Amino acid sequence: MPTRLSNYFLRTLREDPADAEVVSHKLLVRAGYIRRTAAGVFSWLPLGLRVKAKIEQIIREEMAAAGAHEVHFPALVPREPYEATNRWTEYGDLIFRLKDRKGADYLLAPTHEEMFTLLVKDLYSSYKDLPLTIFQIQDKYRDEARPRAGLLRGREFTMKDAYSFDYTDAGLDASYLAQRDAYERIFQRLGLSYVIVQADAGAMGGSRSEEFLHPTPVGEDTFVQSAGGYAANVEAFTTTAPPARGYEKLTPQEVVDTPNTPTIESLVAIANANHPRPDGRAWTAADTLKNVVLALTHLDGTRELVVVGIPGDRELDIKRAEVAFQPAEVEPATEADFAKNPGLVKGYIGPWSPDGAVLGEESRTGIRYLVDPRVADGSGWVTGANVEGKHVLGLVAGRDFTADGVVEAAAVLPGDEAPDGSGPVTIERGMEIGHVFQLGRKYAEVLGLKVLDENGKLVTVTMGSYGIGVTRILAIIAEENNDEKGLIWPASVAPFDVHVVATGKDDAVYGIAEDVIAQLEAAGLDVLYDDRPKVSPGVKFGDAELIGVPRVLVVGRGAADGQVELWNRATGERETVAIADAVAQLTA
Amino acid sequence: MPTRLSNYFLRTLREDPADAEVVSHKLLVRAGYIRRTAAGVFSWLPLGLRVKAKIEQIIREEMAAAGAHEVHFPALVPREPYEATNRWTEYGDLIFRLKDRKGADYLLAPTHEEMFTLLVKDLYSSYKDLPLTIFQIQDKYRDEARPRAGLLRGREFTMKDAYSFDYTDAGLDASYLAQRDAYERIFQRLGLSYVIVQADAGAMGGSRSEEFLHPTPVGEDTFVQSAGGYAANVEAFTTTAPPARGYEKLTPQEVVDTPNTPTIESLVAIANANHPRPDGRAWTAADTLKNVVLALTHLDGTRELVVVGIPGDRELDIKRAEVAFQPAEVEPATEADFAKNPGLVKGYIGPWSPDGAVLGEESRTGIRYLVDPRVADGSGWVTGANVEGKHVLGLVAGRDFTADGVVEAAAVLPGDEAPDGSGPVTIERGMEIGHVFQLGRKYAEVLGLKVLDENGKLVTVTMGSYGIGVTRILAIIAEENNDEKGLIWPASVAPFDVHVVATGKDDAVYGIAEDVIAQLEAAGLDVLYDDRPKVSPGVKFGDAELIGVPRVLVVGRGAADGQVELWNRATGERETVAIADAVAQLTA
Repeated sequence: MPTRLSNYFLRTLREDPADAEVVSHKLLVRAGYIRRTAAGVFSWLPLGLRVKAKIEQIIREEMAAAGAHEVHFPALVPREPYEATNRWTEYGDLIFRLKDRKGADYLLAPTHEEMFTLLVKDLYSSYKDLPLTIFQIQDKYRDEARPRAGLLRGREFTMKDAYSFDYTDAGLDASYLAQRDAYERIFQRLGLSYVIVQADAGAMGGSRSEEFLHPTPVGEDTFVQSAGGYAANVEAFTTTAPPARGYEKLTPQEVVDTPNTPTIESLVAIANANHPRPDGRAWTAADTLKNVVLALTHLDGTRELVVVGIPGDRELDIKRAEVAFQPAEVEPATEADFAKNPGLVKGYIGPWSPDGAVLGEESRTGIRYLVDPRVADGSGWVTGANVEGKHVLGLVAGRDFTADGVVEAAAVLPGDEAPDGSGPVTIERGMEIGHVFQLGRKYAEVLGLKVLDENGKLVTVTMGSYGIGVTRILAIIAEENNDEKGLIWPASVAPFDVHVVATGKDDAVYGIAEDVIAQLEAAGLDVLYDDRPKVSPGVKFGDAELIGVPRVLVVGRGAADGQVELWNRATGERETVAIADAVAQLTA
Repeated sequence: MPTRLSNYFLRTLREDPADAEVVSHKLLVRAGYIRRTAAGVFSWLPLGLRVKAKIEQIIREEMAAAGAHEVHFPALVPREPYEATNRWTEYGDLIFRLKDRKGADYLLAPTHEEMFTLLVKDLYSSYKDLPLTIFQIQDKYRDEARPRAGLLRGREFTMKDAYSFDYTDAGLDASYLAQRDAYERIFQRLGLSYVIVQADAGAMGGSRSEEFLHPTPVGEDTFVQSAGGYAANVEAFTTTAPPARGYEKLTPQEVVDTPNTPTIESLVAIANANHPRPDGRAWTAADTLKNVVLALTHLDGTRELVVVGIPGDRELDIKRAEVAFQPAEVEPATEADFAKNPGLVKGYIGPWSPDGAVLGEESRTGIRYLVDPRVADGSGWVTGANVEGKHVLGLVAGRDFTADGVVEAAAVLPGDEAPDGSGPVTIERGMEIGHVFQLGRKYAEVLGLKVLDENGKLVTVTMGSYGIGVTRILAIIAEENNDEKGLIWPASVAPFDVHVVATGKDDAVYGIAEDVIAQLEAAGLDVLYDDRPKVSPGVKFGDAELIGVPRVLVVGRGAADGQVELWNRATGERETVAIADAVAQLTA
């Protein structure tokens, strides 16, 4: 039986919802797929549920093909396992916490590493039980500070998360690749383009980590790519440090007056005007060393100031700094921080001062000084002299100052060299649609997941973690597949295979439509049938275009003469064909 | 491809889990279907998920056949709609509450009436859109005081809940019957016996209300049945009051000394010994009027004492009292209550005292006095005289005292007359597996769900609510279908159609098993294949019996000669048959 619009639970809207920022959110609401219940929390209408179920089915099939077994964990989980791994604390405001009537702490799980680990520990004890990969498709919760963009970043959202369990590193590699391959097949079947980029393992810990990013200018993630095949999330990009050089032949540093140089540009200009470089080349922003003061908040709540020295031709990238300093939180130092530390002379901070080093753990400020990898031994810089109105020229790393460490916090720029030598990179934007990574033994160690190996020795299990955002993927597909008239679903996830529109008031037309539908259904197609008797053809056509089933069959006035119209929603093509030909085309 | 036990995520246990009270919980854990995560919160292993999915599929099919459309609401819902209907307060400790990072209140929905009502209000506005029935299969949350019995009463559990929307009472009746019929088909397909009983509408409000109870001695619900077809939850049973009688000819009441009569039996004995009835018949417990003091806690927090008079041959049924007094909470009066009310002479409470009425709103205690329907005008009683050591004989309702009202709080006893005149009732126990009821206009009124009718007039929508506990049903099926060796699933919900066990170390046997499986799968059967090479036949047989797939095919030593063994798990029958015959039987 077809789904009949005359009694389907659907109401299409002519206007965009007021709170929708992105096109997928607007169209999914207007076309009757979802409704907003609260910020970042949505209700699913019948059309939306159908598309979601199709995506889930593709994921289930590819998980089965990869040998993964489906399980299902509760959303409501006790605090203790998350306490053991410290994530109860690390997640901060990002998790929803609650107490039961006895006062016991629970959370709505944002991710289930702990639960998977404990379940396997509960059931398995021997290397013979491994390898094992298990997955679930489940609703997760994150109390995002700014839930936005409809389903792209929700507070309640559906994910497929899989975990692999091995007792050797080689086993983990194999399990990892099986999931990685499955992800490629899933995205191909969904018709979603993707780039696999190296990623930072983030708060999860672990080693090998790759993200599947869907390239899109509205993406929240920035990634780099080289023509030679390198691809990485910008947070995971590593800077190639220049080789250390000797500095025996370099001129000594020189403190110079640089009044009114609030910017790198004004500093470079005054240096070129008053203090030409010994080698005759002009000073550029890349010769300056900009020192940025950051405040770190550590897990134990302590606040630490650090100074980060980066070449003056690039900005500090706060997201890269967050990765570099995790799990601490990072923010720019405040006016209060400067007031408490008079040694930090705003606008003139440097690693060196006329009366000796002022930064570094061994110095009198006690503030750590960390530098970009480009600040290699033997590199010379124009930088602050820690005195109002003065800078120092020709300050040489390794000779005149020593940093407390190296940090990847400078922005990556187009043309930067890929770390694998595959050439300069471009910078792109993308949206994360999948993440595969090797957790290693972190969770197994903390939670005590060990098995007996071939020699009867207890060994700690090594794990992989593999996630796909189901509801996010649905939104991205909608985001990528639409036109000014509405949605255009790829056939693999369309809510129906064919949308049959019968028009007019002639009962015979509706009878013919039912006949055609019976033939389509006999061939196994899912049919949405617009049988509404009192709705005008224009409204029916508009709804068909908005709903976005890829093939539309219009049974109208010509039907009595055996003619129907076949629309291809994607190409916009419309052709009048004989009924038998239409059926043949649709069921081919 | 069959599911192979050699790499399935399964571990069967020989011992019952320590915390399991009921057989379904024990067997579902031992056979590897579920694991406990927290009190009343479970994780689902692959076998369990398969059974759950089969139950859900049956429900989906019958919902579709009844014309209901599937939707899906979030579990995390905002407080406001539940505040509007007062359920945020009424649910008390039974709901999980939480706050987001901005301090806004949310709950984990125990039921979604409000959300369904608001969604329909959001989308629909005309009688032409109705009737509408929509449903979801979704995880719900209740913070039960005593989560127990495994899946039978969980704190996170899966339900199918459906709601119907009509604008006429006749429409609601039709929608109600469509769901009620669908429920009958669902339980028949699940092989679950059921009795449809009249129920109290409870905290949901509304009018017609029926429960589907599965009769079982371990059920939490008590219901009554008459041979003439009456069936009701004991909370919904209504007592047939005797006709009022004149009392002109009755003898006056008489206060008598009744020292040391702490029980109804001792009171009856002393009455018969010292004060024979004027008509010569012996006094019985049914002639006495027992007055029970209850403390009601109203929604606004106020505490009220009431006295309930019931015939002395029955106990007060606190569950019936709770229904009678809802939404107030009911408990027996405490010693402190008696201490504050010296007019209530414990053991000698009555509606009358030698110095005038002491109970009733008009009396000097101000305590309401409510009576069982059997305390009809003209009925005479032996009851307390409100004086220590004294009772009154021949106290006649309507002549000597007037109650403030009638209340259904006395226990129902076997042999009580069904209210519809269909004869005496028996008392049975059952477990609720479904509930259908007419909410009427309560939610629509509070939340403003109105549509325009044929005359362009705004009318309030009338609703029905229909629930089935999916995870509870799974547990009940397990509870009913097992033996000392393990589970025995009905074919309609079994995790697999056939469990093939290959035994021994001969590769040829496993080759034959694979052949047979290929034939079974070609016929569309789901096969679980025990291909574990190093596991003994005894362990394999034990697992097969524990897991409970209804048909087991053993491919062993006889396979080389074309013989296999076919087990029927339900009947215990085992027969040796030719391979072709076994395949023919299984695929018949």
